[in-house]
Parts: sequence; structure tokens; C-alpha cells
Amino acid sequence: MKLLKGTDYIRANREMLLKRAQALPRAPRLAVVRVGERPDDLSYERGAAKRLSGFGAELVSVSFPEDVQLETFLDAFGKLNADPLVDGILLLRPLPRHLDESAVIALLDPDKDVDGITPQNMAKLFMGASEGFAPCTAEAALRLLKTAIPDLTGKRAVVIGRSLVVGKPLAMLLLAEHCTVTICHSRTENLAAVCRDADILAAAAGKAGLVDGSFASDEACILDIGIHVREDGSMCGDVAADSFAERDVLLTPVPGGVGSVTTMILTEHLIRACERKMLQRSHG
Amino acid sequence: MKLLKGTDYIRANREMLLKRAQALPRAPRLAVVRVGERPDDLSYERGAAKRLSGFGAELVSVSFPEDVQLETFLDAFGKLNADPLVDGILLLRPLPRHLDESAVIALLDPDKDVDGITPQNMAKLFMGASEGFAPCTAEAALRLLKTAIPDLTGKRAVVIGRSLVVGKPLAMLLLAEHCTVTICHSRTENLAAVCRDADILAAAAGKAGLVDGSFASDEACILDIGIHVREDGSMCGDVAADSFAERDVLLTPVPGGVGSVTTMILTEHLIRACERKMLQRSHG
Repeated sequence: MKLLKGTDYIRANREMLLKRAQALPRAPRLAVVRVGERPDDLSYERGAAKRLSGFGAELVSVSFPEDVQLETFLDAFGKLNADPLVDGILLLRPLPRHLDESAVIALLDPDKDVDGITPQNMAKLFMGASEGFAPCTAEAALRLLKTAIPDLTGKRAVVIGRSLVVGKPLAMLLLAEHCTVTICHSRTENLAAVCRDADILAAAAGKAGLVDGSFASDEACILDIGIHVREDGSMCGDVAADSFAERDVLLTPVPGGVGSVTTMILTEHLIRACERKMLQRSHG
Repeated sequence: MKLLKGTDYIRANREMLLKRAQALPRAPRLAVVRVGERPDDLSYERGAAKRLSGFGAELVSVSFPEDVQLETFLDAFGKLNADPLVDGILLLRPLPRHLDESAVIALLDPDKDVDGITPQNMAKLFMGASEGFAPCTAEAALRLLKTAIPDLTGKRAVVIGRSLVVGKPLAMLLLAEHCTVTICHSRTENLAAVCRDADILAAAAGKAGLVDGSFASDEACILDIGIHVREDGSMCGDVAADSFAERDVLLTPVPGGVGSVTTMILTEHLIRACERKMLQRSHG
């Protein structure tokens, strides 16, 4: 087993992204909108803030109590949309039940939607238009894969999972790279057998250790997109990495794999959003 | 080989659709927007008019010369959007080059977009929301399939073609039915071998006779979504039907298969659009 590490991607792309950030007239700013104090959310927010600051970008945390009223929330959201100094908005989800998530998403300015959750960016992804924002985790998986296999044309890719956060978007990104793409999910029969046909196997099922040695042929590249915390506090993914120890596969580790690239993509999207705004202003 | 005919679907669904049409306070109206006089377009328009009239629905043809100016065209389009008596708008494509197709589509009211070409309806399809309009041909293929196999859960479906008119939308519809879905295309390697794994094979490649006996295992259900006219004037699909003559497969014929169901779906979408408008009015 060889590891395909997030640092492989980061090392290869850091310089170029730094140059783009430095060419901007001001620091790009991301607003992270959070309801409540979920540990996952706080941890992602800390990670994002650290990554962004490495590129001179700012993170503004906009948080609300669990019981915030929809009206208050939408109002604050509208202000962030309108604020010319806010380049990107990241909404941490899921929202509490009493807030209508799709109503909130419908309000989000697609040009600030750096995590690709609006219908406008979903449609662009589905239609194969590259100018939208794809969900960061899905794009991170693709980009990390491409550091190992730059030309994906004709490769057989199998994606386990059909969520809107990873599975479906990643399938669309792989299709745009001319892979032959199979989407599997909880109702798939003979899952391991279907996965064994894959040159590229992306595990985004949200089930710790689901993918074992029987799921992949040798020479497969396996993208582990799950993140789980074991009882002892250690992290693992959807792939039972141990079962590939003696196998000739390429595997993204957890931690240190796709997840570590996600905040790089978030940073890149934020910089792109800021670049576009500057361009629009100079033409306006 | 057994044939899965469009009439199988039409027979099973005609009565219910008639009842819905008769319950409406007025005849639903479809505006078909056409630029030029392409024989394909005229033929589709005639077929649609005939089908609609069978349900007491009306087709209004709105045609423009090849060299219509964008402004004139957009203006007419805006009027159709605003006309309360127009329930659905069908834009025949492709448009001539001087008309910006995506600018036109962006103008189309998603509630009147009965052929599912707007980003709003594309996003709904991608997100698995059933309340949007899917492209009629893709939905026709799914509905015809379901007359033969009502429960598609866990079936392996392979779609050849990744267009926005058929391939990608059909893949999303099959995924929503819990199929394991593979999307193939011109860059797919070992296409026949990939297709042989399918319980359901959908051919929407736009290549006459591409799918021969080597592409399917016995007991597969094959949806032929291509429409081609031979030199002698006869029609054929993407499937070389002859090569399945002695095989134990279920195949939709061309003509008389998916194509004949498409205008039924168009009619249903139009009726649904009209029903919704009535509902909105009574609540408004």
C-alpha cells in the first residue's frame, strides 16, 4: 500500500495560491455561519481559520444560539450577502430543525457560495460548467486524485455514496474528467464486487471501515472521504486501511488525506470569489 | 426478444391523465417556440399537437425566421412567460448560433419549463427533488421501464450517453429509484463489457446501431433512446435490434418505444403546470 497524502497536493499548489492571494488588493474574507456549538463545527472552523490565515485571508465567525429565530437568522444572512467586504459565506450544517435549510440556502448569493450548496452552483456542476463552485470536499477528493493520476480519461470510477455533499458532486466531477462513473449506495447489491471493477474507488458512505480488502483490485486508487472518531479518540475513515497493508493500492489516509485538502480548496474558492469581485468592479 | 412498447405505457396511464385534464377549469396551453423550419422540429411539433389534442390541451406555435434578432426573440419570450393563459413553454433546440441559448433559457419561467431545461429544474433533478420538471425524454424512458419493472431498487443500470437532454437526467432518475447507476460515454473503455453487467441498459449515445448483441446479457431490459432516419427513410435507434432477435432480452422498439411516450410525459407536465397554477390562484 502506498499513501496519497494531502500534503502531496498542498505542496504542489501552495506557491501558486499564495501568489494569487498576494495579488489581491485586500485580504479575502470568509464568513462562517454557525448555529450552536457542535464540536465538529468548531473543529472545522478552527482548521479553516488556520489554513486561511496561511494565505493572508480572514475568517469571521458569525454564530447564533441553538434557538435563534428564523427571521433573525435570515436577516443576518441577508446582511452578509450585501456586505461588499465579505467574499464568501460558509454555512455549517445541518441547521436545527426549526430553521428551514432550503429557505436559507435559497437566500445565499451564488457568487459567495464557496462550498457549492446553492441550486445555482448545483446546476452548474450537473451541467458540467466549470465556472461554479463545487462542494469543497468533493473537489478536494478529485484534486488529490489528480496529483497521482493527472489524466483520468477512460478510467473506471466507482463512488460509494450519493449525498449532495460528496457522492453526487464527485460523480459529476469525475464524469467531467471523462471517467466512466458508477454511483453505489446503501441499496446497491454485491457492493464489493461492483467496487472491484474500479480503477478509482471513492468511499463516501459515512460508515467506518466499510471498505475492506475485498472491495478493491490491485492497482486501484482509493479515496477515503469518511471521517469518524473511534471510542479511543483516534480518527478513521470509511476504509479499513489495515486490510490493504499488504496490497498494491494507493490510498488516501485519514487523517491527512482528502480532509486536509478540503480547507485548501475552500481557500482557493474564497480567493477566486474575491478575484471575480475585483474584476467585476474594474469593469463596472 | 420481447418488445416493451410505448403503447404499454400509454394504455396504462391514459385514463388517469384524461381525468386530470377534464378536472381543469380550462384547456391547458403549451407554447412551442421554434426558430426556422427544421423538419425534425416540425415533426415533433405535429406529434405533440396530436397528443395534446387527445387530452383537450392546446398547442400554440410561436415561430420565428432563422435570422430573428435576439432582442425580438427575448421580447416574445418574456410575453409568453407573463401570459397567464400559457401554462408551458417548449423551446425547440438547438437555436441558431447568433442567439445565446443560455441567455434565453435563463429567462424561462421554471414553472412553465415543462421540458426541464432551466438551471432551476436541473438543480432539482440533481438534488433528487421530485417537484421539478425532468426532461421529457429521460422521464419517458424511466416510466416505460417501470411498466415492465415497477421496483428498480438495487438493479444495475448502465446509461450510454451523458447529454443534458437524456443521459445525465436519466442517470439521476434511475439513481432516485435506487438503481446502482453507471454512466458511459464516448471515452469509456471496453464499452460492451461494461454494458454486459447491466440489468437495465439505456442507449442514448446518438449513434445508430451502436448497441449490438455483445452489449447485453440475457434478461437485460434495453431502452433504446436514439432516433435516426436511414437512407431509405425508415427509422432506427441506437440499438441494432436484429442482433437481439434470438436473445432473451426486453427491448423498446424504434419507432413505437420511448419516443412515443415522450409526448405523453410532455402532456402530463403541461397538465401538472396548469394544476399548480390553479392551486396557487385559489390560495392566492
